Parts: sequence; C-alpha cells; structure tokens
Amino acid sequence: MNVLIVHAHPEPKSFCAALKDTAVEVLSSIGHEVFVSDLYQMNFNPVASAQDFLARENPDYLSYALEQRRGLDAGNLKSDIQEEISKVKNADLIIFTFPIFWMSVPAIMKGWIDRVFVSGLFYGGKRIYGKGGMQGKKALVCTTLGGREYMFGNDGIHGQLYGVAGMLRPLLQGSFGYVGMDVLEPFVAYHVPYIANKDREEIILNWRQQLLAIDAIPIMAMPCLDSYDDTFKPIR
Amino acid sequence: MNVLIVHAHPEPKSFCAALKDTAVEVLSSIGHEVFVSDLYQMNFNPVASAQDFLARENPDYLSYALEQRRGLDAGNLKSDIQEEISKVKNADLIIFTFPIFWMSVPAIMKGWIDRVFVSGLFYGGKRIYGKGGMQGKKALVCTTLGGREYMFGNDGIHGQLYGVAGMLRPLLQGSFGYVGMDVLEPFVAYHVPYIANKDREEIILNWRQQLLAIDAIPIMAMPCLDSYDDTFKPIR
Repeated sequence: MNVLIVHAHPEPKSFCAALKDTAVEVLSSIGHEVFVSDLYQMNFNPVASAQDFLARENPDYLSYALEQRRGLDAGNLKSDIQEEISKVKNADLIIFTFPIFWMSVPAIMKGWIDRVFVSGLFYGGKRIYGKGGMQGKKALVCTTLGGREYMFGNDGIHGQLYGVAGMLRPLLQGSFGYVGMDVLEPFVAYHVPYIANKDREEIILNWRQQLLAIDAIPIMAMPCLDSYDDTFKPIR
Repeated sequence: MNVLIVHAHPEPKSFCAALKDTAVEVLSSIGHEVFVSDLYQMNFNPVASAQDFLARENPDYLSYALEQRRGLDAGNLKSDIQEEISKVKNADLIIFTFPIFWMSVPAIMKGWIDRVFVSGLFYGGKRIYGKGGMQGKKALVCTTLGGREYMFGNDGIHGQLYGVAGMLRPLLQGSFGYVGMDVLEPFVAYHVPYIANKDREEIILNWRQQLLAIDAIPIMAMPCLDSYDDTFKPIR
C-alpha cells in the first residue's frame, strides 16, 4: 500500500508526533510506502481564499467550490494544493495524526481539508458517500486529547457529543466518508498530558498492533445512497 | 450591549457578508455598540504555534495550553491574540457569521478559537460549562450552507450528524458552552448558492427579526456540573 500520513502538532517532540513516527516505522517495516505531510513543518497555509487560484473564471465574485472545479481542469490551482492532491491520489490509506483542539482538528488540518478536498475531484453534484471521488481509499484518524474516556461516555459530562467518534463525525462522516473513503474506527489516546510513561508505552504498543492489523479495524457505517432519490430525499 | 461579530468569508460580497452587515446595521440601530473582527480582511493567522508567545516558560517543549496560561499572566501573548481577547472581554454578545466548510467552520475561524480561547481565562481545571470563564456572555452562530434542510433531518442523508445544530455541537457546546457562554439556537441559511433573490431577502428579513428579539432566541441546554463530581464522574 501507499500510505499518506497527514500530521499536525505544533511540538515536534509531542506524544502525537511519536504516534506518527510509530506509524511511519511500523508501516515501512512491513513493506508499505509511507509519505508524510507534516503540516506545521511544511508551514502549510490553511486559509481557503482567492489566492488559491492562479487565474479565476470569475474575478468579480469568489465562489470557492466553483473555482476549485474550474481551477482543477485548467491547472490553475496553487501548487501547494496541487501537491497535496497528488499525494492523496497516490495513497491507498491516509492516516491523520493530530491533537484534539476544541473538540475538533487544529485549524491547520481543517484548512488542509478546506483547500485540498477540491470540488469536481473529491466530490461533486450527486457524487458523495458511496459515489464520492475517493472510493477505494481508507482513512484512519489517530488522535490525542487531555480528557478521560468516561467524560465522553453516554452519561459523561461531554456525553451529548456521542463519544469521540461522534464528536469527530463532521470529519469522519462529513469529510472522509462524504468523499467516498472507507473510514476506519479512530484510534484515540486519552488523558495524554497527564499519564505516566508506562501508560504512553502501552498506547504506542496498542497503536502498533492496530497498524499491523489494519484490515481488522472496523469500517464505520456511512449513509447508503440507495436509500435516497436524486434530490437526496429518502425513498420510502 | 456590546456586540462582537466574528466574521469569516473569503468573498466580501457574499450573502454571508450581507448577514453580517445586517447584524451591524440592526444592532447599531437599536443602540448596541457593535465591533467586527472580519478575519479574512484582518488576514488573521489561524495557526496555534510556538510563535504565539513572546517568551516561553519552557522553550524546549511546547505545551500550548500551559504557555497560554503563563503567557496571559506574564503579558507574553502575541498582540493579535491579546487584541481579540480584549474584544471578547468587552462583549456581552458574540455573533459568529461564517459559511459551513466541510460540516464545520472555515479554518480561519477554527484558528481564532484555537488561539484566542486561552487556558486560564476562558476555562481552566474544573472551570468549564456553568463555571467557565465567559459566564454571562451570549454566543450566536449565523451560518450559510449549500445543503437543504431535509438533508439534515432525522431520516436525511446527513441525518447521523443530528441536524446542523448537532453537526456544530463541537463548536456550540464543546467551545462556546464549554467556556461558560449562553449559547443561542443557531440561525441557519440553507441552500444559499442556489436560491432566488427573493428567498435571500426572506432570509435577511428572518435574521433581522431574530436580531430585534435576541432575548427570545432559546438558549441551548448544556451539561450541568451539579450532576458530576470533582473528577467529572456522574453523581448517581
């Protein structure tokens, strides 16, 4: 497999970076080709804007998704976007390693999605979910956070977020599933800033085992287009 | 009231910008003081990083939340963060106007939260939700999207996201509620790129009416700390 790791943590010596390094090491050791987009190291620009297009179809009014579609066809997307698109196209599996910032991804990773998941290629019109442009690719999230697992349980203080997988649903379903990827159950490391080294080692060990048996990680259920008509109204 | 509008749209002539302008006009006309942080216009930097601190307690390892807390006390936060914090402190109501990008806020707005909601002031230790640092302030989201309302209904194609308010729960509860704000039910403008001018005018009219009767907008229920012990375990 070709694997792309998209990594976003402001501290290169973080535990999250260790999880990223573990993925590089383990997946390379079993013969996969691994590529890394380390967004902080790359100084990646996360702001979707008019500057993303070398030329515009409509210079008077920016419709971002429309310009993405045209820019893609005309070769007018900025080179940093183009490079990330090539990496995604080349990948069979994309792993996202990041710390939870405000119950979601850090802005630099959100912007990677905003700018790289271009309309016309990743999705378009009715081509979403099972018909999305990135069918056949897998997505795997590996994330670290300060909270404890019970805080996200049914009766937990953040319970209304439906667990970390529920909290990340805009990402897992609304972004990765939406473009047609098979989304694996996320790997979540809880309470990271506060735990002992031995607990961190155990997490690394679990992560290593997950990576060695990626095919065994359950795929999350996504909406099935067959249940909806052409206007995405449910078929009864 | 002092009102802060945090606005993020890459096109100044967008319908979303018209909603922002409407808020400025309506709220000013009834005597409120209105301040605007137009993040694209300000060229706001959304990337939380080591550069956010003029000096660091620990130059060898970046613990972002820890440095926020110390930087706040020592006056070492970068000036753009400090300015936004002052605007928030001064505000009784904060309105967020933005288009939905990938079922969430645009990266530039996510980064405004990542960098401005500093530990030690907005929250800290057990001071979250009802004890959060921004108690007494109101938050109101006004957002535009391409999808139709029925797509987010219970049996809709994006139904598993629990409606737009559910989809935005990491923002509404996990960010604004978390820091103690009263979070008003969001104002959502559906299908915006595809609707006729008369439909847009109707949305503007609805928005205007909401703004004129802000006290009538329902406040979203948030977790109640009384139901949890000191370690945030549920009290049975």
